[in-house]
Amino acid sequence: MTAALDDIAPEAIPQVHRIESTDIETAEPMVAEMLHSVYPHEQVYGEYCTLHGYVDCPPRQLYDYLAHIRSLEEWTYSLRGLTVTDTPGLWQGYDRLGADTEVYARVEANPDAMTVDYHCAWDQGAHLWMIYLMRVVDAQAVLDRPGSVVLWTNCRHPFYDRNPFPAAAPAARDGWVGDYWDIFYPGHLLEMHNLKAIAEYRHSHGLPVTPEWVRGA
Amino acid sequence: MTAALDDIAPEAIPQVHRIESTDIETAEPMVAEMLHSVYPHEQVYGEYCTLHGYVDCPPRQLYDYLAHIRSLEEWTYSLRGLTVTDTPGLWQGYDRLGADTEVYARVEANPDAMTVDYHCAWDQGAHLWMIYLMRVVDAQAVLDRPGSVVLWTNCRHPFYDRNPFPAAAPAARDGWVGDYWDIFYPGHLLEMHNLKAIAEYRHSHGLPVTPEWVRGA
Repeated sequence: MTAALDDIAPEAIPQVHRIESTDIETAEPMVAEMLHSVYPHEQVYGEYCTLHGYVDCPPRQLYDYLAHIRSLEEWTYSLRGLTVTDTPGLWQGYDRLGADTEVYARVEANPDAMTVDYHCAWDQGAHLWMIYLMRVVDAQAVLDRPGSVVLWTNCRHPFYDRNPFPAAAPAARDGWVGDYWDIFYPGHLLEMHNLKAIAEYRHSHGLPVTPEWVRGA
Repeated sequence: MTAALDDIAPEAIPQVHRIESTDIETAEPMVAEMLHSVYPHEQVYGEYCTLHGYVDCPPRQLYDYLAHIRSLEEWTYSLRGLTVTDTPGLWQGYDRLGADTEVYARVEANPDAMTVDYHCAWDQGAHLWMIYLMRVVDAQAVLDRPGSVVLWTNCRHPFYDRNPFPAAAPAARDGWVGDYWDIFYPGHLLEMHNLKAIAEYRHSHGLPVTPEWVRGA
């Protein structure tokens, strides 16, 4: 086997379109058919919800801020009061969107790829299934300008549709985090704007992007 | 300074909305205003183009495949004939979409974050400004099912709108890679389907997801 797809008979994967088998004249209408002037909300944000943002702040500084989990208390709308737990790396706080709602969270950050993943859950810390996948990219490389591009993706885990741990929910609360899935795009956009405003203010005023209280603990 | 945003006067960042200053009743209509039943192509894919795909193939194997740059010769529509150059890590091949069009490319992959970035350019290898940002995510974690989620983002670098090295273009070619930006979404979707079909076929048939010829060289 010395060349592309030598191990697969072409008729076994008819849905594969490569220039050798599907010439440009054939591919063009296929591509045109997938192109639309508008796309429904459900198609764009139904199963995955990705936001992109430009932030006029050096990427390493923005990454460092995000990688400190307490930054969430600043730029998110309602996640507050994070304190360490007895489990290394696991924090406990509150989502003030829900009455008496505890949030558990840990961060997995990679300084080389500048990925920052927040693994979270409402009510319990044993299974952190709400995963916020973020990445900081050097805008000089991808947009030819100083600053950062922030990518932020959530995937629609089935637990958004059914609370897997109903016994852990506080009695006073009648909602569930998954009730908000349909407004994740605008809700996260509001938070992306928070992140942008806070980081840009600090960077442009010579303040540390990551304040001591976020770094400390 | 011991608490959130202690270093910034609230009136300096009026665009920041947090539950303390913008209560839920006030935030709800703001969020509702950003929510639409349809979104124009330009808003969704104008400056950034992100695709998401589910692939029924273990994430480590899919990452390994993508991290080998010659996999591009299989799942892309028209990138072919990659060979090593005298510059370590830099490959040279052809984009058969354009007449006599050379492509230069290198891959930056991070096995811990499972990011795979292809840094590419048409015609010259000195400035690789076309950056394909990909990431493989464990679908068990984010979707509660085996397999992989693939995230793929391109950012609209200004060179898409104007060829920065016109002298390097072959005489026979009248187009430019940026002419395709408006069809990146459907074009990349076709390629995402290729990737899915190839990886799923190999995984389900017990074949190595990364064949020897892709791994070798």
